[in-house]
Amino acid sequence: MTLSMYQASVPVFKQMLGGLSGVLAKAEAHAASRKIDPNALLQARLYPDMFALLRQVQVAADFAKSVSARIAGVDVPSFEDTETSFADLQARIEKTLAFINTLTAAQIDGSEERRILTQAGTPKEKIFSGQSYLLNYGMPHFFFHTTSAYAILRHNGVEVGKKDYIGNY
Amino acid sequence: MTLSMYQASVPVFKQMLGGLSGVLAKAEAHAASRKIDPNALLQARLYPDMFALLRQVQVAADFAKSVSARIAGVDVPSFEDTETSFADLQARIEKTLAFINTLTAAQIDGSEERRILTQAGTPKEKIFSGQSYLLNYGMPHFFFHTTSAYAILRHNGVEVGKKDYIGNY
Repeated sequence: MTLSMYQASVPVFKQMLGGLSGVLAKAEAHAASRKIDPNALLQARLYPDMFALLRQVQVAADFAKSVSARIAGVDVPSFEDTETSFADLQARIEKTLAFINTLTAAQIDGSEERRILTQAGTPKEKIFSGQSYLLNYGMPHFFFHTTSAYAILRHNGVEVGKKDYIGNY
Repeated sequence: MTLSMYQASVPVFKQMLGGLSGVLAKAEAHAASRKIDPNALLQARLYPDMFALLRQVQVAADFAKSVSARIAGVDVPSFEDTETSFADLQARIEKTLAFINTLTAAQIDGSEERRILTQAGTPKEKIFSGQSYLLNYGMPHFFFHTTSAYAILRHNGVEVGKKDYIGNY
């Protein structure tokens, strides 16, 4: 076994999205059992100009999707940001998992030097190698949003632990 | 260039610890300019049973140190948790960087199948392959604590952005 671009991406996204799904399920159950409006959690944020929980989940899912697609050399599927409930967020995660499950090691492995352009045509345009895009950009951003979602829920008293965040592997 | 255990570990830890150092420097300057007791930030936490900022930084640094050491097959150096100030935390990060900078690609590469035992002799003892230890355990935990440190500071009004968190690469 040798470390590969596939091993360092898709299985990690699957693990962490599974964890995020479990964390959100506990949050939904927490709200239901205490008769808390789900929006009190979905729209919770740690500071006025930070993303609320709902957006953190959308963005985490988007990093999993776009990073996997770009290193596989396939088009990034576009998912509309229409979610308004925990059920919607679970569906978004499911849809993201379904997409990344279509990607094979054969598509992703060997993408270390693949030229990847982000935010093309904007002042923030940046060229990455596949390896740097995954390790130095994609993963740090992805983990940022999965952890932020968890932190918002912990801050609001939802009983989740790091084991929930980590997911199964 | 092929993805390697070294590339997927040491340079990422260096990038993110550099980011964390920059975030902490901004937090210290924020406290000084507003005459805030630094402990108001260092002891801030998002929920009573979560780690405070100071502990998040110690633990982030410890994951960088222990994961790098174990995949390199060298003893994990022991650093005492004696920090009480921003300067101390910067020194802890420096000391961690100095250690991981001693590790070479030759020591770490090829460690995918290295047997790694965590929490040996405890009920939580777990055996990993080097690759799984890095990707499925070490990195998720490391990013959890760097992001949590950032989130605590954002929640307390420190003006940092995701660019600070991401660091230089």
